[in-house]
Amino acid sequence: MPYIQLNNNLPGITGLLENRPDTAEPIRQLTQILLRGPHTLTELERELIATIVSYRNGCRFCTAAHGATVKALGGNDELLNAVFRDADSAPVSDKMKALLNIAGKVQQLGKEVKPADIERAKAAGATDKEIHDTVLIAALFCLYNRYVDGLGTYCPEDPVYFEKLANRLVSVGYVRAPHAIMANGESMHK
Amino acid sequence: MPYIQLNNNLPGITGLLENRPDTAEPIRQLTQILLRGPHTLTELERELIATIVSYRNGCRFCTAAHGATVKALGGNDELLNAVFRDADSAPVSDKMKALLNIAGKVQQLGKEVKPADIERAKAAGATDKEIHDTVLIAALFCLYNRYVDGLGTYCPEDPVYFEKLANRLVSVGYVRAPHAIMANGESMHK
Repeated sequence: MPYIQLNNNLPGITGLLENRPDTAEPIRQLTQILLRGPHTLTELERELIATIVSYRNGCRFCTAAHGATVKALGGNDELLNAVFRDADSAPVSDKMKALLNIAGKVQQLGKEVKPADIERAKAAGATDKEIHDTVLIAALFCLYNRYVDGLGTYCPEDPVYFEKLANRLVSVGYVRAPHAIMANGESMHK
Repeated sequence: MPYIQLNNNLPGITGLLENRPDTAEPIRQLTQILLRGPHTLTELERELIATIVSYRNGCRFCTAAHGATVKALGGNDELLNAVFRDADSAPVSDKMKALLNIAGKVQQLGKEVKPADIERAKAAGATDKEIHDTVLIAALFCLYNRYVDGLGTYCPEDPVYFEKLANRLVSVGYVRAPHAIMANGESMHK
């Protein structure tokens, strides 16, 4: 049970967004631009940034949702576990290692990002847009994780729920979908 | 000098928003709804939530900008310093003390907000919307603070800059203004 009364029984962020359409709309838009807009980073790479930040913030719902999305985009548990353990030895490009390092600093606090972290990313080929979007995606998930956990929302235990949510995040994206996915994995017309 | 090349020389968040209009637009909209929309919390109370979170995140630009906005809305340095020192003994209502306590927990991490924190706020008369918006404002400033500091933006030293910025945030709000305020305090047509 979340800490406040919602107008629905949907889990995690999905219940919060349905409950407050006015604030949900710009949150959805920002996420759609950053994670699904045209980019030199793949959708998998951007979802990986979202996932590592959510993992380090201890947000079970967001870690499960975006981890499942990484897998739906071609990743696997080995990749996720390697990134959670130590991004520097994970099977990703040097550029992604440097960007995941920046995301990890942002998760702690903005001022933890030092000039050397940026220089490392630029030396590995990261563009200004890639650095900008890494910082903003990491900052956005610091918002999401706090929103989801700060209001005590419900996190389903069934991995099938997150597989269905991930499939929607791949096929539809972050705009409002016509069907909600219930905690039991069933779809419900909104 | 920020860590990435911007298309302008504006300080702090103002340079980042001008540089990326696509992501700026939903960030501005969300802030306008939360801090300036119709509400049972005053604009001063909502700016106080933004300020305490920015202060605890060590973000100089946002603390100065929103602290100046609290003052432009009728607050003063005594109020700000009391809230920074210990919100529980600050000259605010019991409801605001409970909401500032929740904002302080959100600043740390979403899951630091416990049922007892919510019960305290409800016992002091806080509505579900007030609790929701306190959590989301605090989460939003965790995004802002990380965005501003994570990209190494410039923070003016002159308090006059922040007084002018605060006056604009009171008179115009968070939508895109026709004039930018330069670091030297001068206005420039965009």
